[in-house]
Amino acid sequence: MTHRFRDLLALEPLSADELTFLLDQSKPFQEIQKHPLKKLATLRGKTVALAFFESSTRTRISFGTAASRLGADIMNLQAEASSLKKGESLLDTVHTLNAMKPDCLVVRHAASGAADFVARHLDIPVINAGDGTHEHPSQGLLDALTIRDRRGKINNWNVTILGDIRHSRVARSDIHLLGKFGCRLTLCGPAMWVPRELEQIAPQAAIRRVFNVEEALDGADVVIVLHPGPMNRGIEISPEVADGPQSCVLEQVTNGIAVRMALLFLLCAGHDEEGTHPSSEAQQPVNRRATDVKDPSHASR
Amino acid sequence: MTHRFRDLLALEPLSADELTFLLDQSKPFQEIQKHPLKKLATLRGKTVALAFFESSTRTRISFGTAASRLGADIMNLQAEASSLKKGESLLDTVHTLNAMKPDCLVVRHAASGAADFVARHLDIPVINAGDGTHEHPSQGLLDALTIRDRRGKINNWNVTILGDIRHSRVARSDIHLLGKFGCRLTLCGPAMWVPRELEQIAPQAAIRRVFNVEEALDGADVVIVLHPGPMNRGIEISPEVADGPQSCVLEQVTNGIAVRMALLFLLCAGHDEEGTHPSSEAQQPVNRRATDVKDPSHASR
Amino acid sequence: MTHRFRDLLALEPLSADELTFLLDQSKPFQEIQKHPLKKLATLRGKTVALAFFESSTRTRISFGTAASRLGADIMNLQAEASSLKKGESLLDTVHTLNAMKPDCLVVRHAASGAADFVARHLDIPVINAGDGTHEHPSQGLLDALTIRDRRGKINNWNVTILGDIRHSRVARSDIHLLGKFGCRLTLCGPAMWVPRELEQIAPQAAIRRVFNVEEALDGADVVIVLHPGPMNRGIEISPEVADGPQSCVLEQVTNGIAVRMALLFLLCAGHDEEGTHPSSEAQQPVNRRATDVKDPSHASR
Repeated sequence: MTHRFRDLLALEPLSADELTFLLDQSKPFQEIQKHPLKKLATLRGKTVALAFFESSTRTRISFGTAASRLGADIMNLQAEASSLKKGESLLDTVHTLNAMKPDCLVVRHAASGAADFVARHLDIPVINAGDGTHEHPSQGLLDALTIRDRRGKINNWNVTILGDIRHSRVARSDIHLLGKFGCRLTLCGPAMWVPRELEQIAPQAAIRRVFNVEEALDGADVVIVLHPGPMNRGIEISPEVADGPQSCVLEQVTNGIAVRMALLFLLCAGHDEEGTHPSSEAQQPVNRRATDVKDPSHASR
Repeated sequence: MTHRFRDLLALEPLSADELTFLLDQSKPFQEIQKHPLKKLATLRGKTVALAFFESSTRTRISFGTAASRLGADIMNLQAEASSLKKGESLLDTVHTLNAMKPDCLVVRHAASGAADFVARHLDIPVINAGDGTHEHPSQGLLDALTIRDRRGKINNWNVTILGDIRHSRVARSDIHLLGKFGCRLTLCGPAMWVPRELEQIAPQAAIRRVFNVEEALDGADVVIVLHPGPMNRGIEISPEVADGPQSCVLEQVTNGIAVRMALLFLLCAGHDEEGTHPSSEAQQPVNRRATDVKDPSHASR
Repeated sequence: MTHRFRDLLALEPLSADELTFLLDQSKPFQEIQKHPLKKLATLRGKTVALAFFESSTRTRISFGTAASRLGADIMNLQAEASSLKKGESLLDTVHTLNAMKPDCLVVRHAASGAADFVARHLDIPVINAGDGTHEHPSQGLLDALTIRDRRGKINNWNVTILGDIRHSRVARSDIHLLGKFGCRLTLCGPAMWVPRELEQIAPQAAIRRVFNVEEALDGADVVIVLHPGPMNRGIEISPEVADGPQSCVLEQVTNGIAVRMALLFLLCAGHDEEGTHPSSEAQQPVNRRATDVKDPSHASR
């Protein structure tokens, strides 16, 4: 099976087949995390640019580790160190990075739509590492991979999402993905965090809003507790939830490396196998999903 | 000769034989610093996580350079960029890093006991890069290596330590190490910096407190002037002391790379030679010094 | 043709032949930026120390990427993370870095003359990445490379430099370089930014000051618009200038990687080919331009 991706900007436009392909691609990279030596030569000689315009610790380290384990070098731009303070536009910054000829750009930005905007202007693959309240697609994929591992499949579950869904890009990526697989979604939180508009964001999905936790958990096969990461135990979250046997927090972190290795492999390694590379492609009419990517099992040859 | 280490958390629990082993292990890595090419493939494919919860320039660069020269990749977490500001617990942070599957964790933290605490909860080797006022064992080892090189041996010297000993984790690591080798220790500084309790911290060592510098230097074979690193010349330290022929400051920096390469080699490379790796070992009852480490002379083959 | 360089501290002392040599050396590295795989093994096992005592995003990433593409490892010291805040002298800091045995030091500092000062005290090659208002030689070289590519040659053009020339180290490097090639220089800006002293800084060059933009542009073959990098469009610079077909901004960024790869290659790789390395050389009388560097076309063998 081959697939055609150029960027990963959002899960919303992807089909269930395409999402399944991405999850399947992540499996060999999941296995690699169990080996004593986790490093491949797949992207040796390539450069992955990490452009984080919003502060981040774990996502940046996760993408960086994924790139290193594929043998790539890293160009690291962090907002706090960056010249953005001086008023430079997002576009100037990524154009400058791009002129240093990385093979891929991973971008995080506080504005929804920033990753799309960047991808429209660059001739290299772009991965959205979180844009405003829009999407965080690699996080949605690692959530799905974790659910599939724990429950044996991803299709047709009753999934409850708890928390501040309104402001969560992860929730949006999860809703789009799970909806494609026929999951029924229950969104629960204080009403201000679960606005009515959320019922319409994934038209093909069965979405209901519930404001009572007991009701939301009744009949749930999977519960997704939203928390941006650093947990303030006993205040924001109880230890039973964070650390109990149902918690998948650390599995998700490990799966994050696997998913990101798969994405970097698909977007960066594919070009050469085609005999084309980003700069030659830029001379063609820009088709943001034009690259034919081969079977990932060749990754570690 | 083989030795059994899993972590390096403190020098206090180590015997003179074990300390000698660590110093001997550092010798080939000291030689490597004189070669035009200093990079080995010993830890190629391994990842060293640097988790610095206290700001540091030279120790972090030293561990990072040591890891790179062994061929390892680095995961770099710095407190100022970290989510600790948001209230995440130390344990959550290192568990998250660990779930990204590094082969070793180097930790610095402002709380005494932090490195022990981390090591009790993780299934990978932990190196203490300084915890509160407790210990800074790699610094103690590089001090000892420097003394042994300059004076031919480490045993039975009269050693004077000058400065704020009360707040110095380096002084504590030095006192434990030198005491094991039968050195007689003179601790000198203003009384508030040399409290009576220090006489008891290493029961087997001969420790005396002196409050007059001339008396403290009388008969000393080795003088250790405590300074945390960046020197404010003429105010905190006179140039004759910092830059005179007796000063070993820069030798110590070079030796720091050698000691840290030896430690990373012993703690990370040993696992594979056993045919075991951290995650399989975690299934055994946790014995924090259970790994058999082979002769280090094979490091650069 | 062979050349003798040890450091690159400024363009002022270099002859037109030496500058031509450096530009020619950059050509193969310019070509490499067009390849799908841009990484060489030329400096594998070497370490490049980046000591940035002034905040920088693009120059630091450019030198770091250049080092990585040559296969070198990086030691990264940034002022904001550094102990300089605690009052450590520049010299202590670079001596400490040097004791960790990098093969080359790239230094940026707010004080004019800082790079020269550092080079006089170290036994390894030093590259000036910008010192106060003195020089930024790698930027001067990439400007010249861009002019030569666009106009076919570098000699005898009428070149106009617009902006705050008084405070610009880049302008000074450009003036010295272009003057050596017989270019006639028109410096234009508000009078306070174009002081009379500038007419004398390159005695062999024809330099005139003009305070009217139309007059300054009349007859110009090349116009250099000074801007430190992050552009505030519509306020500091109009989009027609920044983004028009005459703009070379992004070409310059790409050429920056090429020039810096050439410099790192010349200063770091040459030593081993001589059978000498920095530390042995330090025992000879210090001659800051004593290393014989071979034809660069062997770089990628």
